[in-house]
Amino acid sequence: MVTANKNWSGNPGTFAIWRESNRSGMDLTTVGADARCRAMSTQPATAHDHEDLVAGLARAGRAAQRQLARLDDAGKAAALRSAGAALRAASGKILEANARDLAAGQANGLSPAMLDRLKLDEKRLEGVAAAVEAVAALRDPVGEVIDRSIAPSGLELSRIRIPIGLIGIIYESRPNVTADAAALCLRTGNAVLLRGGSEAVHSNRAIHAALVAGLEAAGAPAEAVQLMPTQDREAVSAMLRAAGLIDMVIPRGGRGLVERVQNDARVPVLAHLEGICHTYVHSAAEPEMATRIALNAKMRRTGICGALETLLLDANFPACQQVVDGLLAAGCELRGDARAQALDPRIKPASANDWGHEFLDSVAAVAVVDGLDAAMAHIERHSSNHTDAIVTSDEAAAERFLAEVDSAIVMVNASTQFADGGEFGLGAEIGIATGRLHARGPVALEGLTTYKWQVRGHGEARP
Amino acid sequence: MVTANKNWSGNPGTFAIWRESNRSGMDLTTVGADARCRAMSTQPATAHDHEDLVAGLARAGRAAQRQLARLDDAGKAAALRSAGAALRAASGKILEANARDLAAGQANGLSPAMLDRLKLDEKRLEGVAAAVEAVAALRDPVGEVIDRSIAPSGLELSRIRIPIGLIGIIYESRPNVTADAAALCLRTGNAVLLRGGSEAVHSNRAIHAALVAGLEAAGAPAEAVQLMPTQDREAVSAMLRAAGLIDMVIPRGGRGLVERVQNDARVPVLAHLEGICHTYVHSAAEPEMATRIALNAKMRRTGICGALETLLLDANFPACQQVVDGLLAAGCELRGDARAQALDPRIKPASANDWGHEFLDSVAAVAVVDGLDAAMAHIERHSSNHTDAIVTSDEAAAERFLAEVDSAIVMVNASTQFADGGEFGLGAEIGIATGRLHARGPVALEGLTTYKWQVRGHGEARP
Repeated sequence: MVTANKNWSGNPGTFAIWRESNRSGMDLTTVGADARCRAMSTQPATAHDHEDLVAGLARAGRAAQRQLARLDDAGKAAALRSAGAALRAASGKILEANARDLAAGQANGLSPAMLDRLKLDEKRLEGVAAAVEAVAALRDPVGEVIDRSIAPSGLELSRIRIPIGLIGIIYESRPNVTADAAALCLRTGNAVLLRGGSEAVHSNRAIHAALVAGLEAAGAPAEAVQLMPTQDREAVSAMLRAAGLIDMVIPRGGRGLVERVQNDARVPVLAHLEGICHTYVHSAAEPEMATRIALNAKMRRTGICGALETLLLDANFPACQQVVDGLLAAGCELRGDARAQALDPRIKPASANDWGHEFLDSVAAVAVVDGLDAAMAHIERHSSNHTDAIVTSDEAAAERFLAEVDSAIVMVNASTQFADGGEFGLGAEIGIATGRLHARGPVALEGLTTYKWQVRGHGEARP
Repeated sequence: MVTANKNWSGNPGTFAIWRESNRSGMDLTTVGADARCRAMSTQPATAHDHEDLVAGLARAGRAAQRQLARLDDAGKAAALRSAGAALRAASGKILEANARDLAAGQANGLSPAMLDRLKLDEKRLEGVAAAVEAVAALRDPVGEVIDRSIAPSGLELSRIRIPIGLIGIIYESRPNVTADAAALCLRTGNAVLLRGGSEAVHSNRAIHAALVAGLEAAGAPAEAVQLMPTQDREAVSAMLRAAGLIDMVIPRGGRGLVERVQNDARVPVLAHLEGICHTYVHSAAEPEMATRIALNAKMRRTGICGALETLLLDANFPACQQVVDGLLAAGCELRGDARAQALDPRIKPASANDWGHEFLDSVAAVAVVDGLDAAMAHIERHSSNHTDAIVTSDEAAAERFLAEVDSAIVMVNASTQFADGGEFGLGAEIGIATGRLHARGPVALEGLTTYKWQVRGHGEARP
């Protein structure tokens, strides 16, 4: 998952966009009755209005989730394939809506990188539809028996995977998240309440309308996928406070967004913080492998959360120069501590901020460390517990690193850019969780489920 | 787990007790350096002081957790057996401390039920020590391989169970929780920060001192189990805000405590809300079984969270009178809706508050419902999603109930009083989680672990 723009909280035009959408008569028929009422109103919204809005959406979503839960695996897959087909059928409308967002983005001075994230074209939209169909083809974990036992009392106990319920997704500029996140939630029988970024508001609405049309064509409940009808920030606050109505919130975006969600939420949050990934080249690393892995981890794509941000070189690794040369030759700027700078005059001095910093660019911090313990201490201090790697041919060092580094993903002799649900065989991902509870690392279908205990008795009373 | 007193937030003497403990020179050597400083101070504490106190305790706890994580299964078991032995060896001191708490409780007018929960004697203390040893004998889930696969890239992926880290436990009057909760956390390699109720402050300190002596005798780090050195409520707030320092908080106590924790926490919470358990007697229930199960579910012990609070009688169940007779004969007060009252004049009228109410007493609400769907609708509206049961010999009705009722534990033909980690074969429990994420229902060792992804490569770079 790419950590996208970080200025989500700074958009000044959110409320204006809501009012505009009311005036323009946007199709809001897929939201619950309360929400529809609210959205049609021309009064300025208050915190209480937003609570009512979210409560109405949540009630509609929860009711739809119960209908969805009665669909079997094939029924949910068919609904998703229908949604994928509807996205293709609506491509004209979606691209037209996207053009409006791009024009507004240009007028508002969005950076070229942000405009690129926002942009859809025929090929990208085909990718979005194909991704929805790919999720339809994944194995549904709902109904899976996690374990089963017979208690001494004679009771038959089983733990069964079930949907979580209603999931809120709060995300930034990429409009494909509207379809991706909805598909993963639906595949696991969850209803979803989406709140996308203001930059992509028209694209998101067009994609949402297509998804809903697809669901309805397949006989699935429209309210299983709802899009927040307003871009007002206070509506996000109401989502975050809706404990008991929304079962989990997943923020997808930059640090500012994730931190705001974590601070304000009364609803459980599955958070993806930054990917401040370290690669430690151990003294016993094979030089060619270390060079190749460091280069790939940093430079394959610099903007993804699995990209290397800090390189740790062991003082006893004999081929530091080779690794440094490889990165510099590929156009990477290196910022080093004094010992790293002593290796090569082309290494610039690092500032204190460069350690534990997510550059998301062709820049890396480099430190020289004395052995495995020093490397692990550096990682413990600066890592975001996303993905950290060691390169070594010393198996004991590798196993200590795997055991003792406390990150969601720990790797030996591999590029941290493999930190990805698809690469992990999960078929997709809704994010890479950097917290400790419920799910860690790449989260796909299993992380969107919970379980219940089913107990089958024969009249047992407890003695 | 018993839901205990509900007036945790109302104790007026908390800060006084802290000051008293400073003057009396209580042994505070087991807390981190910052905390020790703070506890020795005679200045009134500010919110900032409490943050410093909790940060110091958390740093000491996290350091101890890393030491603990290096112990293998046998090492952790040995440390727990040593702690159990130390509890026995300290029984004189612990009972003396408990006598002080009981005397203070009597002077403060605690109810007989609360005094009973607080009271330790030789036999109960032996039970506490034996429970710690029983946890030592449980299988350690840490290190377990949850799953393993080889990705198309050739990477070897495994998910490995690991400790969560530092766990905060906030609990009420029962002093045995000090030992029980510590043992479960330690067994899974977690450090724990305990904050017990003011009523049990001396008992908790004596038990804590014994546990620490036992850990140290076995070479385990003392700071793996810390007890908050103050009863000040603001220190609890600081615990709840200590995101990044405390990995999870488990509140154990009444609704007031749990709701405060859920409202104030920035740290993830594993919450046990009330057990508002329903038993639905379906039209096809076997009369003798229905009578026996309803009686056991309500009257075996009325004060536990798995006790029946509302009985739902199907209008087409032919032996309603038999079930009602059984409960009334056992001394249970029944409060019914109009249709239930029509069954038997001894059934009193229920008020609106009686539905979804946790009586924890020989009182039950009774409603007559028209079929399975009406029963499930009543449960959906009033249940706390803890444990709900159906009594029926109709397999299709049973399976619909198991599938559609959205509680952590759903039962067929069994007493809801079986909702218990011990009865479920988990060997112990730290609570019954009523939320939806991470762990649901009885939580023992597995719920106190999380996982990491270990990735073993051979030099792979991502294409």
